[in-house]
Amino acid sequence: MRPITFERGFTRYAEGSVLTTFGDTKIICTASIEERVPPFLRGTGRGWLTAEYGMLPRATHTRSDREAARGRQSGRTQEIQRLIGRSLRAAFDLNAFGERTLKLDCDVIQADGGTRTASICGAMIAAYDAFSEMVDDGVIETVPLRHFVGAISVGMMQGIAMLDLDYQEDSMCDTDMNIVMTEEGMFVEMQGTAEGDVFDRIALDNMLALAQKGIAELISLQKSILGVDNQY
Amino acid sequence: MRPITFERGFTRYAEGSVLTTFGDTKIICTASIEERVPPFLRGTGRGWLTAEYGMLPRATHTRSDREAARGRQSGRTQEIQRLIGRSLRAAFDLNAFGERTLKLDCDVIQADGGTRTASICGAMIAAYDAFSEMVDDGVIETVPLRHFVGAISVGMMQGIAMLDLDYQEDSMCDTDMNIVMTEEGMFVEMQGTAEGDVFDRIALDNMLALAQKGIAELISLQKSILGVDNQY
Amino acid sequence: MRPITFERGFTRYAEGSVLTTFGDTKIICTASIEERVPPFLRGTGRGWLTAEYGMLPRATHTRSDREAARGRQSGRTQEIQRLIGRSLRAAFDLNAFGERTLKLDCDVIQADGGTRTASICGAMIAAYDAFSEMVDDGVIETVPLRHFVGAISVGMMQGIAMLDLDYQEDSMCDTDMNIVMTEEGMFVEMQGTAEGDVFDRIALDNMLALAQKGIAELISLQKSILGVDNQY
Amino acid sequence: MRPITFERGFTRYAEGSVLTTFGDTKIICTASIEERVPPFLRGTGRGWLTAEYGMLPRATHTRSDREAARGRQSGRTQEIQRLIGRSLRAAFDLNAFGERTLKLDCDVIQADGGTRTASICGAMIAAYDAFSEMVDDGVIETVPLRHFVGAISVGMMQGIAMLDLDYQEDSMCDTDMNIVMTEEGMFVEMQGTAEGDVFDRIALDNMLALAQKGIAELISLQKSILGVDNQY
Amino acid sequence: MRPITFERGFTRYAEGSVLTTFGDTKIICTASIEERVPPFLRGTGRGWLTAEYGMLPRATHTRSDREAARGRQSGRTQEIQRLIGRSLRAAFDLNAFGERTLKLDCDVIQADGGTRTASICGAMIAAYDAFSEMVDDGVIETVPLRHFVGAISVGMMQGIAMLDLDYQEDSMCDTDMNIVMTEEGMFVEMQGTAEGDVFDRIALDNMLALAQKGIAELISLQKSILGVDNQY
Amino acid sequence: MRPITFERGFTRYAEGSVLTTFGDTKIICTASIEERVPPFLRGTGRGWLTAEYGMLPRATHTRSDREAARGRQSGRTQEIQRLIGRSLRAAFDLNAFGERTLKLDCDVIQADGGTRTASICGAMIAAYDAFSEMVDDGVIETVPLRHFVGAISVGMMQGIAMLDLDYQEDSMCDTDMNIVMTEEGMFVEMQGTAEGDVFDRIALDNMLALAQKGIAELISLQKSILGVDNQY
Repeated sequence: MRPITFERGFTRYAEGSVLTTFGDTKIICTASIEERVPPFLRGTGRGWLTAEYGMLPRATHTRSDREAARGRQSGRTQEIQRLIGRSLRAAFDLNAFGERTLKLDCDVIQADGGTRTASICGAMIAAYDAFSEMVDDGVIETVPLRHFVGAISVGMMQGIAMLDLDYQEDSMCDTDMNIVMTEEGMFVEMQGTAEGDVFDRIALDNMLALAQKGIAELISLQKSILGVDNQY
Repeated sequence: MRPITFERGFTRYAEGSVLTTFGDTKIICTASIEERVPPFLRGTGRGWLTAEYGMLPRATHTRSDREAARGRQSGRTQEIQRLIGRSLRAAFDLNAFGERTLKLDCDVIQADGGTRTASICGAMIAAYDAFSEMVDDGVIETVPLRHFVGAISVGMMQGIAMLDLDYQEDSMCDTDMNIVMTEEGMFVEMQGTAEGDVFDRIALDNMLALAQKGIAELISLQKSILGVDNQY
Repeated sequence: MRPITFERGFTRYAEGSVLTTFGDTKIICTASIEERVPPFLRGTGRGWLTAEYGMLPRATHTRSDREAARGRQSGRTQEIQRLIGRSLRAAFDLNAFGERTLKLDCDVIQADGGTRTASICGAMIAAYDAFSEMVDDGVIETVPLRHFVGAISVGMMQGIAMLDLDYQEDSMCDTDMNIVMTEEGMFVEMQGTAEGDVFDRIALDNMLALAQKGIAELISLQKSILGVDNQY
Repeated sequence: MRPITFERGFTRYAEGSVLTTFGDTKIICTASIEERVPPFLRGTGRGWLTAEYGMLPRATHTRSDREAARGRQSGRTQEIQRLIGRSLRAAFDLNAFGERTLKLDCDVIQADGGTRTASICGAMIAAYDAFSEMVDDGVIETVPLRHFVGAISVGMMQGIAMLDLDYQEDSMCDTDMNIVMTEEGMFVEMQGTAEGDVFDRIALDNMLALAQKGIAELISLQKSILGVDNQY
Repeated sequence: MRPITFERGFTRYAEGSVLTTFGDTKIICTASIEERVPPFLRGTGRGWLTAEYGMLPRATHTRSDREAARGRQSGRTQEIQRLIGRSLRAAFDLNAFGERTLKLDCDVIQADGGTRTASICGAMIAAYDAFSEMVDDGVIETVPLRHFVGAISVGMMQGIAMLDLDYQEDSMCDTDMNIVMTEEGMFVEMQGTAEGDVFDRIALDNMLALAQKGIAELISLQKSILGVDNQY
Repeated sequence: MRPITFERGFTRYAEGSVLTTFGDTKIICTASIEERVPPFLRGTGRGWLTAEYGMLPRATHTRSDREAARGRQSGRTQEIQRLIGRSLRAAFDLNAFGERTLKLDCDVIQADGGTRTASICGAMIAAYDAFSEMVDDGVIETVPLRHFVGAISVGMMQGIAMLDLDYQEDSMCDTDMNIVMTEEGMFVEMQGTAEGDVFDRIALDNMLALAQKGIAELISLQKSILGVDNQY
């Protein structure tokens, strides 16, 4: 894995704000508490958690169009923000923080591969911080944690499983998987794609083993940064 | 698996047109050949294949808004059509049919679960038919097939792996996976999601085994319908 | 007239669902009851009826863009769905089914001319079925019918009036009219267009006479399919 | 008919510019020549003619939303501008002014009924003026006129046919027709709508007779304003 | 300054309606009272005032695209309508006419430079007329005037300050300022732009002096047209 | 003035990339060279420079909607990015770097007032760095500098002119000006707005004097950071 850092309190207004760095990939993950829920939850006493993802136009080697100027989010952006949302909804108990919405914003300021998995890792910390602030403010009694979740990309390059691919490695890989797991080693999301070259069961097993090891390390790091005991 | 049928030549203008039925899920899959490619491929001599997905407003229990009237495709729609496109690009050799685009349209007329995997299965046949017509017309010499692909959903319900979930089963499942494989049993796409309840490695293995069996049957069916030898 | 069929119950979730076939033109017409009305009718006790129209991208000889992907409905689509809505509002008593909206969706799966008039004919049956279901459910006492309506296209080709034009005939016609009439032979909508070649009063009279005859047959067919007495 | 005036040269930059007044309905109709055609006509040597329609937000009794601010043109707007375009394409020979597009803009500054028919009448004059300027500039030899066209609305109020309905009359009418005819009394467009109350053949004949008389007067007025001989 | 006229009551439905003419620049300014306010003011007892700006496609030398057809207002349009709104909010006391919104629409029918400042001048009169009508109707006791505002453009051409630039002068100027002032000679808005050539303090002082003189004349004219005493 | 820093090379792919900090306002300014120009400049040999502006959803005290998700940029965003573009076009000679476009992206990651002026200051450095890289690469011979530009906000609070307002000061000010000047003390842009309370000439003079002093300091800082001689 590349050098990984989480800088909490990166911006000052958000309830949680984390600069997430995986090598040259840098993402600002913020968590915002809003005192309302989508229509389908009104009056149920339950909360919601959702995510949005964006990339600064020049986060990449060549400048890409600004989605706000084009007037629509790309399919890729929507696919990623839906993945982040589902992953983090698995991490927290939506019934345990009232009729509120936790909005996670993951904005990539520099992209060198693995932005979706890095976003999930950073959003986990930002969300935890936002819930902690609610505890400190007496709004809820305890962080509504179900499990820590971590995410990492894996790929197969010339028959060898590789962890945490950067952009160049990703381009050279035949296969690319994004894995999201809990601290207990359970699967939350698993997305494998082999547009270039299909993969067999052995490759899958190798990739999953590698991902599991990487995610365990990531969750340890998340917990140590948050000062949470690493009981698993 | 539910009763599965593929009705070729369902509409008359498309180069390939298949009414795909998985139980109460019914999808019209058409394949259209266009004599142009996206800008990034112009002048390369290579072709492209892409997919679009839609759902009639009343394909479901309660009517949903028409995306054309709302003015944008939902994130779900985009996620699905990107999956279909990637899956079918793995099935065919994009270098072997000239600077042309194969457009696959999957329109759900009745939805009872599994629309994305059924779309892939039906689009496989529609695409094959479209390429066959090009062979018949002398445009290309042979169908540019790399491998047949099939797709199926699997889930875990109360600890038991279930294949080809309908809408009600899908709602009751803790976990939901969509698997796309080739005729050789290689993975093309694998998407598992456990928003409700995470799953362990044993569940994954069970689901994959079941999916592999289901996909093998599906590909046999596809081949027999197309009159292609089932050599694997 | 070309062979015409109406297949009721074509899809299973809609309150009314009819596969409408005029020769090679095939349209799925569904009727959905919604328990709300547009803002201008709230609190009035009156209902509303409206229609939407769409065409699958490959319903036609060459693939047309998907309106949902382009982000807007074409002027043609809007013109047609407004015509269908007005025609069906003439068929039913909007004051007699409470504050509800009947939504009619007409989706063309194969287009060979006359899609707007075929949509009206099929939507008439789908709407009738939806209201009948409300009667069966005890929501209303009787189908709020004012008159059956039918619709047909007519044109002038080389001086001769032609009924129910298919795509090729339509292209060869100088003039094209779409007529909507009630079972009593009264006019509901009449749209004639002569972009290519203007027409005189004699041609109009011939076209109207032919249309009236065709619509009478159509309404007979609608009634016999619905099992309604043909009292006119 | 209400007092009708056409003020040519109303604005100074357009090749044709006419303030069209039908009673309290006031519309600015401009004609612009553009040195290009839509893609489907490139290289054919043929021209095109198209129309756009708009209404100032406070042209009406209560302010309506600005379409540019809402981000889309309404179905009504599109229906009207398509009607204007078709009507004027019947008036001129599109093969006789080179690969150019005549753009007609009809902007309603005050609306009191009959805006679509008044737009057609005013656009006829603006288009004629624009073509005349091309003749004066030596670009073409003669105005590519096929026939003058005029348009008027008619309706049935309590059994009596009424010509050129204002907004209040229009609201009280059971039926509303818009008729576009040539100077020779031939039909170009005919749109009748009876949402409120259907109409019979006698009413239709009365309305058509009245419309024909009104349009003949209108075309006389158009010609006298343009100084064109009234040969029919 | 070019010949300037304000024609009140130009259209009949708006509460205030003024045809504003600065030389060949012609703008219809209407003021509409709406019985509601934006969400952030609901329940406060305070009113709001806002403006929208548009240009007919052929108001200019060459036709520009219709913003409603393109589906978005340009940055220039938004910049201008925000300036008009801010300027007029300075003119009136928003706390003194209840929970209502005054909507100002400025639609350019012919453009020869200075459309944004002419819009402000005309909107001032239209707004005054609309408030006067509310006084006449007994809705409010007095026009909620804080100060009359006027606006004018100034520029530097070859070292000489010029007032009220037309399109050609504007193109030749190195610098272009738009100044909005009150009847007391206080600044409301000041926007100077020197894309072509920067300007020094002496030029600024000259332009401001000239603008102040011009605006004083404009406000005199506004008052005399409205029959308001010119007490400053 | 608040503590001001410019961190060059903040992200690694852009030709120029500067983290701009004015107190708690933090903006990433990047400059990208593109090898093409807008249509109106093609074939002229001249270049173009343009800017886009955005704000991360949680840059502010309360989260604002993501513009890409809403599907349009706000009027405020467009107003600001147009100002940045005009200001920087004054700084460089557009005829001296070939048919290329310099795209400036200013993305606010934390907002505490003065984001538009800070964007201009940071974009100046990013643009300079991008041009320097072109010089280093031998593409152009020298940075096409006309003058350094700097920008600052000023306001009047209780009769006293204040420089570089933060969000709280800005809310308390009666008047707010944004001034852009060159290193020679010439004006490039000047925008004053007094929605709350109009201002007189004395206040203007005080604000301008203060702004001039502040901008001179800013430009000194820009030059010292870039290692450019401060000759003025």
